[in-house]
Amino acid sequence: MPQEPPAIQDLYPEHLAHCYGCGRLNEHGHHIRTFQVGEQTVSEFTPLPSHIAVPGFVYGGVIASLIDCHSTATAAAAMAAASGDEAAHGSAKPPPRFVTGSLHVDYLRPTPLGEPLVVRGQAREIKGRKVVVESTVYAGGVATARGEVVAVLMPDNFGQG
Amino acid sequence: MPQEPPAIQDLYPEHLAHCYGCGRLNEHGHHIRTFQVGEQTVSEFTPLPSHIAVPGFVYGGVIASLIDCHSTATAAAAMAAASGDEAAHGSAKPPPRFVTGSLHVDYLRPTPLGEPLVVRGQAREIKGRKVVVESTVYAGGVATARGEVVAVLMPDNFGQG
Repeated sequence: MPQEPPAIQDLYPEHLAHCYGCGRLNEHGHHIRTFQVGEQTVSEFTPLPSHIAVPGFVYGGVIASLIDCHSTATAAAAMAAASGDEAAHGSAKPPPRFVTGSLHVDYLRPTPLGEPLVVRGQAREIKGRKVVVESTVYAGGVATARGEVVAVLMPDNFGQG
Repeated sequence: MPQEPPAIQDLYPEHLAHCYGCGRLNEHGHHIRTFQVGEQTVSEFTPLPSHIAVPGFVYGGVIASLIDCHSTATAAAAMAAASGDEAAHGSAKPPPRFVTGSLHVDYLRPTPLGEPLVVRGQAREIKGRKVVVESTVYAGGVATARGEVVAVLMPDNFGQG
C-alpha cells in the first residue's frame, strides 16, 4: 500500500496546529484536512448531526469554517509552490501559515446534512503577502456554496502567546 | 427583579431551534443569543478555549458563525418590526426565520481569546424577502471583525425534513 500523502495541515508546526477548524491537536475541532491534487486542493468533511441549521441541512457557519480552513491551506500550498517549496508534496519544510483577511461565502442552495462534502479550491492570485483563494463546497457533486478568501501571511509574532 | 426579555432566538419555533450556532435545543452548539436594544441588536458570546485559531486568538470560523446567527436574528427582528410585529419585544407571534444568502467578514485585527465578545448589528435594507444586515464584533470595546449578511426569508418547506 502506498503511504497516504500528508494533508497540508499535517505539516503545520505543532504550536500552530490547534485551530478549531483544522488543527490536528484540537480535540474538539473539525479536523479539516486538505490535500493538493494536481492544480486543485481537495478536502472531504462529513458534518456531524449537531452541525445542523434546520432539519436536513448543514449550518452555514460550518460551511464558512470549511471554506476558511480549506482556503488558508490552499494559500499555504500555493505560496510554498511559488517559492519553490512543494510543501504539500511532502517536503520537510513546513508550509507558511496564513490567517484570514476576509471571507466571502455565497450560499447557492441548502447543503444536505448527513453525507460527505467535498471542498475544491484554487489560488487565484498571489500578491506580496496575500493569496486570493476560491473554494467551492459540493454535496453529491452539486455545488452548494462558493467562497472567496483573502489569506494573509501570518505575522511572525503570531502564535507565540 | 424585572424579567429578562427573550432573545430573538428564544422565539424561534421548536422545529427551527436546533441550529449549531444559535439553536437553544442544540446541546453541542454555540447558543448565540441576540437581543434588540433600541435600534441595534446585541449578542454576547465568550468563546471556549477550543475555539482557538492560533494561541491567544479566536478562530475565524467561530467569528463568522457569530456574525451569521446574529445577523439572521437581526433580519428576523427587523422584518417583524417592519410588518408591525415587535417579535423581539415579546410578542407571542414567532419572528420570521431567515437563512443566509451570503456572508462577508472582514477580519480587522486578531480577536483575543478568553474574554467576552460583543456583536452589534443593524438591518440596513429590507427588500422583498431579503434583509441586508451589518454586524460588528468587539473585544474589549475594539472592533475586531465586521460582517455583512444578506439574509433571505426561509422558504415555507424548510425545516420539515
